[in-house]
Amino acid sequence: MNAPADRSLPGNIDVAAYMQGLGRSAREASRVLVRADTHAKNHALAVMAAAVRRDAAALLQANAEDVAAARAAGLDDAMIDRLTLSPKSVEGMAAGLEQIAGLPDPVGEMGGFAYRPSGIQVGRMRVPLGVIGIIYEARPNVTADAAGLCLKSGNACILRGGSEAIRANRAIAACVREGLREAGLPESAVQVVETTDRAAVGELITMKQYVDVIVPRGGKSLVERIDREARIPVIKHLDGICHVYIDAGADIDKAVRIADNAKTQRLGTCNTMETLLVHAAIAPAVLPLLGKVYADKGIELRGCERTRAILSSGEATGADPGAASVQMALQPAAKSLPALIPATEEDWRTEYLAAILSIRVVDDLDGAIEHINTYGSQHTDSIVTEDYTRARRFLREVDSSSVMVNASTRFADGFEYGLGAEIGISTNKLHARGPVGLEGLTTLKWVVLGDGQVRG
Amino acid sequence: MNAPADRSLPGNIDVAAYMQGLGRSAREASRVLVRADTHAKNHALAVMAAAVRRDAAALLQANAEDVAAARAAGLDDAMIDRLTLSPKSVEGMAAGLEQIAGLPDPVGEMGGFAYRPSGIQVGRMRVPLGVIGIIYEARPNVTADAAGLCLKSGNACILRGGSEAIRANRAIAACVREGLREAGLPESAVQVVETTDRAAVGELITMKQYVDVIVPRGGKSLVERIDREARIPVIKHLDGICHVYIDAGADIDKAVRIADNAKTQRLGTCNTMETLLVHAAIAPAVLPLLGKVYADKGIELRGCERTRAILSSGEATGADPGAASVQMALQPAAKSLPALIPATEEDWRTEYLAAILSIRVVDDLDGAIEHINTYGSQHTDSIVTEDYTRARRFLREVDSSSVMVNASTRFADGFEYGLGAEIGISTNKLHARGPVGLEGLTTLKWVVLGDGQVRG
Repeated sequence: MNAPADRSLPGNIDVAAYMQGLGRSAREASRVLVRADTHAKNHALAVMAAAVRRDAAALLQANAEDVAAARAAGLDDAMIDRLTLSPKSVEGMAAGLEQIAGLPDPVGEMGGFAYRPSGIQVGRMRVPLGVIGIIYEARPNVTADAAGLCLKSGNACILRGGSEAIRANRAIAACVREGLREAGLPESAVQVVETTDRAAVGELITMKQYVDVIVPRGGKSLVERIDREARIPVIKHLDGICHVYIDAGADIDKAVRIADNAKTQRLGTCNTMETLLVHAAIAPAVLPLLGKVYADKGIELRGCERTRAILSSGEATGADPGAASVQMALQPAAKSLPALIPATEEDWRTEYLAAILSIRVVDDLDGAIEHINTYGSQHTDSIVTEDYTRARRFLREVDSSSVMVNASTRFADGFEYGLGAEIGISTNKLHARGPVGLEGLTTLKWVVLGDGQVRG
Repeated sequence: MNAPADRSLPGNIDVAAYMQGLGRSAREASRVLVRADTHAKNHALAVMAAAVRRDAAALLQANAEDVAAARAAGLDDAMIDRLTLSPKSVEGMAAGLEQIAGLPDPVGEMGGFAYRPSGIQVGRMRVPLGVIGIIYEARPNVTADAAGLCLKSGNACILRGGSEAIRANRAIAACVREGLREAGLPESAVQVVETTDRAAVGELITMKQYVDVIVPRGGKSLVERIDREARIPVIKHLDGICHVYIDAGADIDKAVRIADNAKTQRLGTCNTMETLLVHAAIAPAVLPLLGKVYADKGIELRGCERTRAILSSGEATGADPGAASVQMALQPAAKSLPALIPATEEDWRTEYLAAILSIRVVDDLDGAIEHINTYGSQHTDSIVTEDYTRARRFLREVDSSSVMVNASTRFADGFEYGLGAEIGISTNKLHARGPVGLEGLTTLKWVVLGDGQVRG
């Protein structure tokens, strides 16, 4: 064993040599995993889940020690919140592993076979990527999720969690190893980096011969640093500057419901709307209704000039008074309108992750697409419209990993899309875009079946 | 126009500003191309083909000037050979553009739509990558091929050919622009870098905001430099260390035919076999036959100890004399056996691209797979066998972009696989593996169709 994962390492280890050792073991394990059968992988996942349930008290105790140390070190409340496990979240880990066991095995899928004029038959086979390095902060449940997804997709993985979560991560890793052992799979298929030395990350993201892809999960500064320094492909997203565009042809009820949910259902997620775009013809009808909704929920609004003109007047007027007037009757407007702060160029480029929304009135669909492709982060953008042609143009021309019609951006998520689980969300254009599940952890190789053919 | 592509640039230009200008224009053009209809793209390709045919004499004249300058500059014969166009290769360019026009348009393909419990319907749409930077040496025909493939896949491209081919590349670029203009598409959809300043490459491979992917085509040192310095994903292969493994269960006729073709049909291509692996049980029967074939074709052999023992004895003996004896009768062995040079560890890692082959006798399939996964370059590897179980294991466990049964490695090629054309071959594991055609120049984005759904 290169990595005695259940006890602390001596203080002065050679981090580079230690990480190279993990890499070598992972590469060896990946050669076994590529031929591991589905039953063995699912059995390992079931044993892991059972071990997590059985050891729940010990896991919570280890986590409590992490939390106490984090508090003593002065970590902020948001970090403590992400770090803290509860009986419910431990049960969630176990259930998540069982869910992954229930997903179809993507490894070995074959398709597209066709005969070519030469007589060879050409198709493709889905195979694991090999070794995945995952770098994350705080949340110990990522250890279980990532281990499960990598194993099911036939990949070995090296998990580097934050030092603040090291005790819980070690306890979870012990459950994971138990599952691998019981199923006859190499324990080095999932390795937790034991040293909290930051040099370990630098080594992990540059050892090309042992690691095939890096998945960073965490704040923007972590992801930026990894993306800048990695010598290995990185599956990542930096920003989630998501837009809802309310088109002239929108149903006003749907527009209000979606723009409300996309912003307020959860403020701090990457698929939360940060900028609302509204067609000029419908703005006078819809903005006052939304102004009221956001005011009631304490959302600070930063508007362009036209937005401010409409919201200052405090009345719904204009193009489509029909649907609007129904709501107006129920919710008298102009009672508690929010602060109207002028939006700057900087606002269009900002992911607030907070109770702030920027709003811009645009002349038409072209203006909306132009705005999104200029200021967006290629994450998730939604149009609200009943107009077929404009919906179709939005889907084709908005260059984002998820494009939606009449749905909340909050749906951009592996579970909601039916992937079963996700290792993260990608705003890369190559390989995997959007929520990345088992398929994103695999690749297709070409398979040629012949009968002695040679090239003429 | 940022790039007056049909005349020389002044000597002292600001290369960074010039390249940024090309990048900005390319990004703008990509926004138009993403919505260009199939008819317009195909019409542009047809006009380009016609222009190349019409201007054939001028193209050949420009190329003759390039060749004369290259000779004067003392470039080697191999480079001159790649640089030189003929009436046949000019016609090949035109025909290639027409072939691309005939391929199905990959942009906008949609599939996989399914309803989710929330009521949203989720699927995916194939879309262009955006802007592609292509860096290549010598061969002017890459200019036409790359322009055609990028256009058909809805991508803008920036083409940086070698300075030795600049006159022909400019002449081809003029034909390409004519096609774009006639079809009402932006001329900046295809831009040829006009400066021969090497700093242009450094700029191209780092301007992330304008370029989505880099495709280098050329020698290993060029590709290595680009891969090391790029800040943008690179679709590439460095080496083509391809293997044929002759299994104990091989049909000897097929084995000889494939091992001959894979090595000798063309010596200098990336899908040429560089190392032959032979199961110990069949080596005494098959190696003498192959020794004769290679000797006749002047291939230098570098063998492991067991290989040399068998070839030194000069006689076919052993496991499967049946099929072998037929050939033996036709081609008396041991007449002109080749030099038997001991193979070193270095040989297993070398892509000769020359009349040299390394040969190793292995104990079994595991030994063959282990050798390939250790020394190979994840390009193309083939097993010769009639054994179902071993064929199946080889396909699954060999970690290469193309794996074959009973077929020559020389088939690893976009045309042979039915892609219609290829922009290159990738040994990356992410995104596109093996021959990269139109599909490899596109990506899938998620499409969500709703009816006002919000997340609960």
